[in-house]
Amino acid sequence: MATFLRPELSNLRAYSTLTSDSLPPEVDSLDTNEFPWDLPIALKERLAQQYVSTLASHRYPDSHHWPLRQAIARYVSEHSPTAISPHQIAVGNGSDELIRSILLATAIGGYGSILVAEPTFSMYGILAQTLGIPVQRSPRDPDTFAVQIAEADTLIAQGDPPVRVLFMLQPNSPTGNPLTTAEVDWLRQLPEDILVVIDEAYFEFSGKTLVGELAAHPNWLILRTFSKAFRLAAHRVGYAIGNPEVIAVLEKVRLPYNLPTFSQVAAEVALEHRQELLAEVPTVLAERERLYERLQACPQLRVWPSVANFLFFRLQEPQHTQPLCDTLRREGTLVRAIAGGIRVTIGTPAETERFWQRLQAFLNQL
Amino acid sequence: MATFLRPELSNLRAYSTLTSDSLPPEVDSLDTNEFPWDLPIALKERLAQQYVSTLASHRYPDSHHWPLRQAIARYVSEHSPTAISPHQIAVGNGSDELIRSILLATAIGGYGSILVAEPTFSMYGILAQTLGIPVQRSPRDPDTFAVQIAEADTLIAQGDPPVRVLFMLQPNSPTGNPLTTAEVDWLRQLPEDILVVIDEAYFEFSGKTLVGELAAHPNWLILRTFSKAFRLAAHRVGYAIGNPEVIAVLEKVRLPYNLPTFSQVAAEVALEHRQELLAEVPTVLAERERLYERLQACPQLRVWPSVANFLFFRLQEPQHTQPLCDTLRREGTLVRAIAGGIRVTIGTPAETERFWQRLQAFLNQL
Repeated sequence: MATFLRPELSNLRAYSTLTSDSLPPEVDSLDTNEFPWDLPIALKERLAQQYVSTLASHRYPDSHHWPLRQAIARYVSEHSPTAISPHQIAVGNGSDELIRSILLATAIGGYGSILVAEPTFSMYGILAQTLGIPVQRSPRDPDTFAVQIAEADTLIAQGDPPVRVLFMLQPNSPTGNPLTTAEVDWLRQLPEDILVVIDEAYFEFSGKTLVGELAAHPNWLILRTFSKAFRLAAHRVGYAIGNPEVIAVLEKVRLPYNLPTFSQVAAEVALEHRQELLAEVPTVLAERERLYERLQACPQLRVWPSVANFLFFRLQEPQHTQPLCDTLRREGTLVRAIAGGIRVTIGTPAETERFWQRLQAFLNQL
Repeated sequence: MATFLRPELSNLRAYSTLTSDSLPPEVDSLDTNEFPWDLPIALKERLAQQYVSTLASHRYPDSHHWPLRQAIARYVSEHSPTAISPHQIAVGNGSDELIRSILLATAIGGYGSILVAEPTFSMYGILAQTLGIPVQRSPRDPDTFAVQIAEADTLIAQGDPPVRVLFMLQPNSPTGNPLTTAEVDWLRQLPEDILVVIDEAYFEFSGKTLVGELAAHPNWLILRTFSKAFRLAAHRVGYAIGNPEVIAVLEKVRLPYNLPTFSQVAAEVALEHRQELLAEVPTVLAERERLYERLQACPQLRVWPSVANFLFFRLQEPQHTQPLCDTLRREGTLVRAIAGGIRVTIGTPAETERFWQRLQAFLNQL
């Protein structure tokens, strides 16, 4: 590798995303936890109209996102006992960018390490590694996927460099479980010199949020996204909710024009129409329950309950996991092979039905 | 500041962008080197139509940007003696993101420092500082703004940590000068363990590019943007052209979904229509020459020649610089006070005329 490149990057693997090579022409994308339906056509037309008539393509975006931060603060406040101010909101190019800003603000250059409880969203660890930040990995209970708190505490006590950030996804991915009372109690008593990031990417599905406790915990930061229930994955809008001091630092370390104007407008319009958009969430949840029951009745696998828009299951004979994925892919259903099992996103009823038929066919010929 | 935040961030100043507070309702934005006109309405309508009919808002963007990279490679090849392949192209959320990826790949964690020749684009230094990367600052000739090569060489020789990246903007901002033959010769003989970044953000105005020499210099990397002559600042699309090995590492350290789908599509459409879009560049250049001659005839200031879409001048009595900026702003013309002078973007003929009238009125009452 060229001398000017950091040697540790030569072995680093990036976050794996799909290339379209060798895919069937029509696929059911049940691998990235997207919402099954696009925005309603009337909303897309309204956005398109706004693009043509009021958006100046040749002008840099609003660097401060103030109207969007105000709209987000109002939305978040609807589910919080105390009002959230726009100074408590930072907007990112997806929550990915916020995760990286958090890492830049807390842990590069040997200042700190991070703690994750695996299996969980791989992005925390991958982004940390690209930045040369050590990742402490604590296990989860193999049966319930709850954090093994004693092990996590040991890692925190030994942290060298000190653990500056704990990333806690609720509900967790790929496993779908919400935080337990014991886990929340543990988060509450963590020392204030650790930033506790609670990633609520799937909040609109789970209904579970810790936003009401932010005021009591200045070292907590909540992440949310427009990529899931709000159906804006293509537009890349995530946000953080927290202590204004922490928000101000995240704003300082980000790129000044991090979010295209059209993405800001799309998120504002989605929030205005949130009742219409979120009205489809129960359809996804009902579909999830239907699939959960079917999977639970399969003796060849074990499925876990989920409060998100996906399900996680493992085959009793793990050697069949990758062949199952490959077969599904060949037949046109993409799922994610991860953590010794498979994570399947809840799609449209037709997509879920095709997945189920293909899965059954595979299991029957074992 | 909270313990989990890196202490060096407390004094860091972010890149300054304008807030709309206290601005007159109609302003001439001649402060950020944007193109004076939006995309033609037919093009915006085509993009809007594409958004409604084919773009899936709920799906993540193409993480690999392959169609866009192919289109960019074809465009770049038009101005290169040797063909450029898509493997030599990386696409960023503005070239800002590429600058940061370069810094992450080469210099964090004490691995290296960077060298800039000031005055130049402040983003190189600011992004380096947010990452804890030392910035070596070499002066430019106060008369011509050419790099003082002996001083730069001394900084490189002394570099501790070693200089891993040199950022060279051509034409330079805020000063508008292209690289001299001596400067290009100097870049050619720099050791291959320094990454030489040649930022050609204003290429479509200057017509000057070093892309033809990339093959001979595996340690060179060229940056370009769609934010200037291509009128897509709102969409945030920049790109790097270089050695496939370096490009692969930049791809590895970036966020996997760094660019919204609509931005990718906008850049593809702009490239398809490049002849129509770039046909307006000569209008801007002619307007620049007209303003240059007017400024040159003013005894109260000194203006420098420029091959970009902006001009740089200094008042003979520097204490009037900030008052001039403030007066212009109050009257509705935004310019950038920088490097002891003023950088003014070439706007529409009407905007340039208003700037000129307001400037004259200010100078006449001195």
